[in-house]
Amino acid sequence: MPTPNIRTLLASTSPQQDITVQGWVRTRRDSKACTFISLNDGSCLRELQVVADHTLPCADLYPKILTGASVRVTGDLVASPGAKQSYEVLAKNVELLGEADGTYPLQKKGHTPEFLRSISHLRPRTNLLSSVFRVRSRMAFAIHQFFQEQDFFYVHTPIITASDCEGAGEMFRVTTLPQGSNAKPDQDFFGKPAYLTVSGQLQGETFACALSRIYTFGPTFRAENSNTARHAAEFWMIEPEMAFFDLDADMTLAEQNVKYLIQKLFETCSEELEFFNKFIDKDLITRLQHTLEKPFQRISYTDAVEVLLKSGKQFEYPVAWGENLQSEHERFLAEEHFKSPVTVFNYPKTLKPFYMRQNDDGKTVAAMDVLVPGIGEIIGGSQREERLDLLEAAMAHHGLDPEGYRWYADLRRYGSVPHAGYGMGFERFLMFATGVSNIRDVIPFARTPGHADF
Amino acid sequence: MPTPNIRTLLASTSPQQDITVQGWVRTRRDSKACTFISLNDGSCLRELQVVADHTLPCADLYPKILTGASVRVTGDLVASPGAKQSYEVLAKNVELLGEADGTYPLQKKGHTPEFLRSISHLRPRTNLLSSVFRVRSRMAFAIHQFFQEQDFFYVHTPIITASDCEGAGEMFRVTTLPQGSNAKPDQDFFGKPAYLTVSGQLQGETFACALSRIYTFGPTFRAENSNTARHAAEFWMIEPEMAFFDLDADMTLAEQNVKYLIQKLFETCSEELEFFNKFIDKDLITRLQHTLEKPFQRISYTDAVEVLLKSGKQFEYPVAWGENLQSEHERFLAEEHFKSPVTVFNYPKTLKPFYMRQNDDGKTVAAMDVLVPGIGEIIGGSQREERLDLLEAAMAHHGLDPEGYRWYADLRRYGSVPHAGYGMGFERFLMFATGVSNIRDVIPFARTPGHADF
Repeated sequence: MPTPNIRTLLASTSPQQDITVQGWVRTRRDSKACTFISLNDGSCLRELQVVADHTLPCADLYPKILTGASVRVTGDLVASPGAKQSYEVLAKNVELLGEADGTYPLQKKGHTPEFLRSISHLRPRTNLLSSVFRVRSRMAFAIHQFFQEQDFFYVHTPIITASDCEGAGEMFRVTTLPQGSNAKPDQDFFGKPAYLTVSGQLQGETFACALSRIYTFGPTFRAENSNTARHAAEFWMIEPEMAFFDLDADMTLAEQNVKYLIQKLFETCSEELEFFNKFIDKDLITRLQHTLEKPFQRISYTDAVEVLLKSGKQFEYPVAWGENLQSEHERFLAEEHFKSPVTVFNYPKTLKPFYMRQNDDGKTVAAMDVLVPGIGEIIGGSQREERLDLLEAAMAHHGLDPEGYRWYADLRRYGSVPHAGYGMGFERFLMFATGVSNIRDVIPFARTPGHADF
Repeated sequence: MPTPNIRTLLASTSPQQDITVQGWVRTRRDSKACTFISLNDGSCLRELQVVADHTLPCADLYPKILTGASVRVTGDLVASPGAKQSYEVLAKNVELLGEADGTYPLQKKGHTPEFLRSISHLRPRTNLLSSVFRVRSRMAFAIHQFFQEQDFFYVHTPIITASDCEGAGEMFRVTTLPQGSNAKPDQDFFGKPAYLTVSGQLQGETFACALSRIYTFGPTFRAENSNTARHAAEFWMIEPEMAFFDLDADMTLAEQNVKYLIQKLFETCSEELEFFNKFIDKDLITRLQHTLEKPFQRISYTDAVEVLLKSGKQFEYPVAWGENLQSEHERFLAEEHFKSPVTVFNYPKTLKPFYMRQNDDGKTVAAMDVLVPGIGEIIGGSQREERLDLLEAAMAHHGLDPEGYRWYADLRRYGSVPHAGYGMGFERFLMFATGVSNIRDVIPFARTPGHADF
């Protein structure tokens, strides 16, 4: 039966008689007269102290109340004499729901991230991971709040697709044919080769050209065989798309979006932030506050290249107009040069996909990337090419089959409007928000090359 | 540049000078002195009437302002003399952003659903589909609100999985090996066969056994080769999972969940509901009000079978204890017998998956289905087996490899707690909420056998 959670009890404004509370034992400590049980139910970082007298009839159970066990406690919620907590529970009865013996893997504190990943089904019971996943949930909700408050509509773009948005990127194939079958693709479930989406943008655009402001928030996939701390094969992405937005409005919305999330982070996750700041990254709160308060700097790609060339800094990858900015370049701009988040815009068109709007200079497109200290790129977006002739020329230049993109071109054929959008990797944002440095530790069950466990 | 949307303008409480509004032309009508443009931007069902005088310098453009074209209008928002709208815009300038010629497929009203599916990239520009997708967005947000307000945490369970939750159901395989390759599964991306998830429940349970109350809301997949109005290969599912909940609390939450969504539907989608009630299903609003107001009936499976047997009704499928309730049986219970939503509980264990909690009678499990009039099953759930010995026996009985489910059994090995949950098919709910009878018309881009277009 549901009972009040520990977050609610600790937020109580007065003592309460005869409450029931349920949770998992973090530690047990025995004194002469009493047993102290530190109880957590995941509703918040803090634990509720249960004081269980040795004269209670249930006292013979206490030795079995080990770390990891689950209990149901009835008693009175009273002001705590201890400094660590405002309230504690004086138990009238303690019931052991589920034991945990000495083989329970989370006995002691201080496990390595690698070990915790190997027990991904139990690691949300630790302070670090439970905090990360509370933040993940509250930030996901804040994303919906941000967009819904501004009349954006949430669109579920398809996961299974027969087209490749970026015209690049390794994709997973989806099939019902047995491994090794020689059947032709037209015998497969969808009658043609099908893949897992790398982006919902193109389908999102069709809805922006009908409902004006939309966003997606769903899983996306990359079959890249790269084992880095920043890459996963399955991750969640937020992709807003807005009719009647130009690049400038796009950059403004992206900045508002990041700031709104950080504001909500301070409002709803203050305990977790203090925990991360203490144990994960001592500069976290300062950096987030900074990001919230300072206007994001804006600089064109061309000017950014100038800044990098004049920096006198030795980079691993060379800097030259027409080359991609590498992570080291992005971090130099945000962390050393501007010392703040920075939006770089108007990239060379040779670096960017076919759908970005060509600028009048003929060399650049109306693209933008938001770079933040400690992470680098957190958002990438652009104004889309709304002129049919230029879009068709760009598709031809990129070697795309116009027939496959006819529906996409239709948006320019019938009532075309200027529109823009961006993508934010949710895990990338969470790493920025928590200071956690490996993407595997902000995803419930990470999928990477060789790993699809649980 | 972003401008106020039509929903905001129509909700204005006073006239406004010099506004700009942008959208798509639904119709244009010319009188002697003026042209009337009916403008929609998808922010709401209603259109904004633009009155453009023939003496304006832009008047030579009017003949090009055809259905489907996009325009930017500046002018004054004034009280409308017409009965159909509160406000209209007296244009000072009309700018044609994007033309739409006679080949625009949405010229006239009254297209078949089949035709509209063939132009899924344009159909959100119709009243019906834009209404459906506004409802879809607001209901998705309401789902988050319902759970977040009660301290549930949103968990992104994995889409790619190496295990099959239900131990049944056709699954899509995910691979990076080329079609026809004879490579062994250990050479594939994840080093073993991988599939698209059919349910996040098992992974969700691991988080409920740490954070107490969680929910998932994400895409799920079935590779069933069935072409019905109720089945899609890709659909979104909501799966809450609660520690310390028994079946009774589970059924109560499910009822609250449905009622909360309908309440929000009335609050946030009243225009759309009136539209559906008028054009799609004349009983819709009555049925929804009924569902909101009446307590859901509860009946055990055993009693439900008795009711069906005694009904004197001729069913296509025979009724017998131990057989599944078919859609016709479910609808009889909800529509004819109880005339209200009904929750059927305690099903024969032979009909249900291994993870459901065995009742003391040894014959049934603590399962429940919520049936609603017009649809049938909308929610299915159960209390989960928290006793390790009984879970292991059920796994053996279902022929499951205990090694593959060792992590799942660990939840019963370490601090096991009573817990329960349910799944609600989001599209099934949307069909109930809108009266739309084909699942393909409540999904932006439906995936069904032979169809993965756009």
